[in-house]
Amino acid sequence: MRRKIGLAELENIAMGAAVLGTGGGGDPYIGKLMAAQAIREYGPVELVTVDEVPDDDMTVAIAMMGAPTVMVEKIPGGRECIDAFKAVQSFLGKPIKYVYSIEAGGINSTIPITLAAQLHLPLLDLDGMGRAFPEIQMVTHTLFGITATPFTMADEKGNSAVLSTIDNRWMETFARSIAVNMGATAHIGCYAATGKQQREAAVHGTMSLAEKIGATIFKARADHANVLRAIQDVTGAFLVFHGKLIDVQRRTVAGFARGEAILDGIGVDAGSQMTIEFQNENLIAKRDGAAVVTVPDLITMIEEDTGEPITTEQLRYGYRVFVLGIPSHEHWRTTQGLKVVGPRYFGYDVDFTPVEQRFRN
Amino acid sequence: MRRKIGLAELENIAMGAAVLGTGGGGDPYIGKLMAAQAIREYGPVELVTVDEVPDDDMTVAIAMMGAPTVMVEKIPGGRECIDAFKAVQSFLGKPIKYVYSIEAGGINSTIPITLAAQLHLPLLDLDGMGRAFPEIQMVTHTLFGITATPFTMADEKGNSAVLSTIDNRWMETFARSIAVNMGATAHIGCYAATGKQQREAAVHGTMSLAEKIGATIFKARADHANVLRAIQDVTGAFLVFHGKLIDVQRRTVAGFARGEAILDGIGVDAGSQMTIEFQNENLIAKRDGAAVVTVPDLITMIEEDTGEPITTEQLRYGYRVFVLGIPSHEHWRTTQGLKVVGPRYFGYDVDFTPVEQRFRN
Repeated sequence: MRRKIGLAELENIAMGAAVLGTGGGGDPYIGKLMAAQAIREYGPVELVTVDEVPDDDMTVAIAMMGAPTVMVEKIPGGRECIDAFKAVQSFLGKPIKYVYSIEAGGINSTIPITLAAQLHLPLLDLDGMGRAFPEIQMVTHTLFGITATPFTMADEKGNSAVLSTIDNRWMETFARSIAVNMGATAHIGCYAATGKQQREAAVHGTMSLAEKIGATIFKARADHANVLRAIQDVTGAFLVFHGKLIDVQRRTVAGFARGEAILDGIGVDAGSQMTIEFQNENLIAKRDGAAVVTVPDLITMIEEDTGEPITTEQLRYGYRVFVLGIPSHEHWRTTQGLKVVGPRYFGYDVDFTPVEQRFRN
Repeated sequence: MRRKIGLAELENIAMGAAVLGTGGGGDPYIGKLMAAQAIREYGPVELVTVDEVPDDDMTVAIAMMGAPTVMVEKIPGGRECIDAFKAVQSFLGKPIKYVYSIEAGGINSTIPITLAAQLHLPLLDLDGMGRAFPEIQMVTHTLFGITATPFTMADEKGNSAVLSTIDNRWMETFARSIAVNMGATAHIGCYAATGKQQREAAVHGTMSLAEKIGATIFKARADHANVLRAIQDVTGAFLVFHGKLIDVQRRTVAGFARGEAILDGIGVDAGSQMTIEFQNENLIAKRDGAAVVTVPDLITMIEEDTGEPITTEQLRYGYRVFVLGIPSHEHWRTTQGLKVVGPRYFGYDVDFTPVEQRFRN
C-alpha cells in the first residue's frame, strides 16, 4: 500500500512516535519542524508498505545518534543526512531506493521523512525496533544477521566517517566514539537492507502505528475524552503507575544521556514510589524498589491531562504523569532478542517478565 | 634515481630510522622481521626519488598508529595494511602508484617496505616528518595544505574505517578514538598526495638518510670505531648529555605512551640530571630542570657502547646512554611549523631554541 505523508500525518507521526520512543529518540518538536519545512519545500512523502518493495531493491536507515540532551541544543543543518545517505550509496555502489526509520522516537521518526522529502524517495512503513533503544546493534536486523556496515556518519562541520565492522556490537563501539568526537551527536546512515531482508527482519507498520497513536491522542483531546484510555486502546498499554515527578538525575556520559526519575504515587498509587532509570530511553521501572517493567517492553511517561509523551530530557520536577508499559515486538522477547536488549544486557540483575503478566487493563 | 632495497638495505634502514625516530615509531625489530619476510617472499623493493614521479601520479602513506607500548605485544597480521591501502584507492577511485613512509621511526619506516613488496609498488625516498611525531596532523604535508583525507584504518579483527575531516587536527581526534577502540593500535592509510605535491611538501631523502645512518653504525661497530662520533658525523647530531637511566615512568593514556626518563650524569655530566619527557616520541630534554632541547628538534638516546637507538618502550633502569640533539627539518622551524609541533603545542611553557644555538660539536 502507498499513501502520502503531508503536514497533518507528520503531526500525528511525531506525537505517536514519542509514545513509542519510551523517553528517547530526542525532542520530537525539533524533528517535526525540520520535516514540516522539507514537506512544504519538496511536497508530501510517499509511505510504502514492505510488501511493495522488490526483493533486491536497497533500503537504508537514516538517523541521528548521540545524547538527546545535546540534540536539543544542536539543531541539524540539513546537509548532514544527505551526506550520510550518499556515503552509503557510494560505498555500496548501487542506488538506494527507499529510506526507513531505525527507531520509533522523537527525532529519529521524522529525520527519515525530512530526507525522503528532500531526495524524493519513498519512506518504508517499518522500523528496526518498534520503539527506541540506545545502542546501534539494538535493531531486529541484528537478530537476522543483517550488518550495520557500511555505517556512515556526518557532522555539521563537514566531517564524515564510513565504518565497517565484523559485527554490530563493534559498530556501536566505533560509532559512539566518533559521535562523541563530533560533539555528542552525529547523523548516520546504516543497516542497508534489501526488500527481501526487510520483510523478514524489520518491525512492520511502525510509521502507521505511530500515526494512529498520534491521531488518537489529538482526537481524544479535541473530544475532551479520556486520553489515557484512548492511548491504552490503540497501543495495548498497561497503566503501571500514576505519580508526580519529585526528582530527576540526568548526566551526559560517554555520548549517552543517563539518569533516573523518581515519582511519588498519586491516587491508587499514593504511598508508593516509582523509580525509572534511563539511558537515552527508559530501561527499567521499579515500584518501591522492585522491578515491575523492564526492557525490551516499553516504558513511557505521558502527561496526566494531555497525554503528551515526555522524553527523558524534558523531565521536570512537578510533572504529573501516567507511566505506561507496552508489550515489545515478539522478536525482542526471544532468547536471542533478550541477549541483545534484555535487562541483563543493561546491567540489571533481573529476568525479563512480559508486562502483561504483571498488569491488567 | 631508482635502486633496490633488499635485506641488507632493510637492516640499515631499520637501524637508522630508529635514530631519527627519537624514541617513537614502535619497536624496529618487529617491523624489520615483517619487511624481511615480505622481501624474501616477493623480492626487493624499488626505492624511487621524488623527482622521478610524474606530477599527477598518486602516492599514499601506510603506517601504524597508536601506543608503541601496545604494538610490541600485538604483532600485525599482514592483511591490515593491504586493507588500508585498498580503501584509500577505492575512495579516490584511481590507482595509487607509490607508497611512502609517514615518519622515520621503528615500525613506520618498515611497514611501507612490507606493503611495497607485497603489492610490487615502488617506495618513495621521503617521509612526512624527517623524524617521528605522535599526532596525525604533524606532517609537513599539513603545512602545505595537503589533507589526511581519505584516512583509512583497519584492525586485525577485520574492522575498518574511512574518515574525512575538515582539517588534519580533526583527523587526529577521530582517528585516535578509533585506534583506541581497535585495541590501542591500528593500520592506517592517509595523506594521499600527487608527485607534484610531494616535491613541495615532503621531507626528501629520509629513507636514504636512515639507510646511511644504519650503515654507519654497523660499520663503526665492525671497525671498533667510535660509534658516537660516527653517528654525529652522519646526522649532524649534538651530544647533549651522557648519563645512566635511573628512573622511567611510562603509562598508556588515550592511545599514547606517555612518560619520562630520568638520567644521572656520567663523566663530564656527573652531578647533573637530565629528564626526558615523551609522548610516544621524546619531546623535551631538561638539564637540571631547564629545557635544553625541545621539539621539533630530535632527541634520541643511543646506548653508550653500541650506538643502538633506544625507543621509549625499551627504556630500562641502568642503561648507559648518550642523549643526542639533531636539528629538525627547516619546514618545522618556521612560525607555522612551530605552531603544529613546537614545544608550546605540547603544553611546555618554553620557546623553541634551535639545538645548534645551545651546543657545539
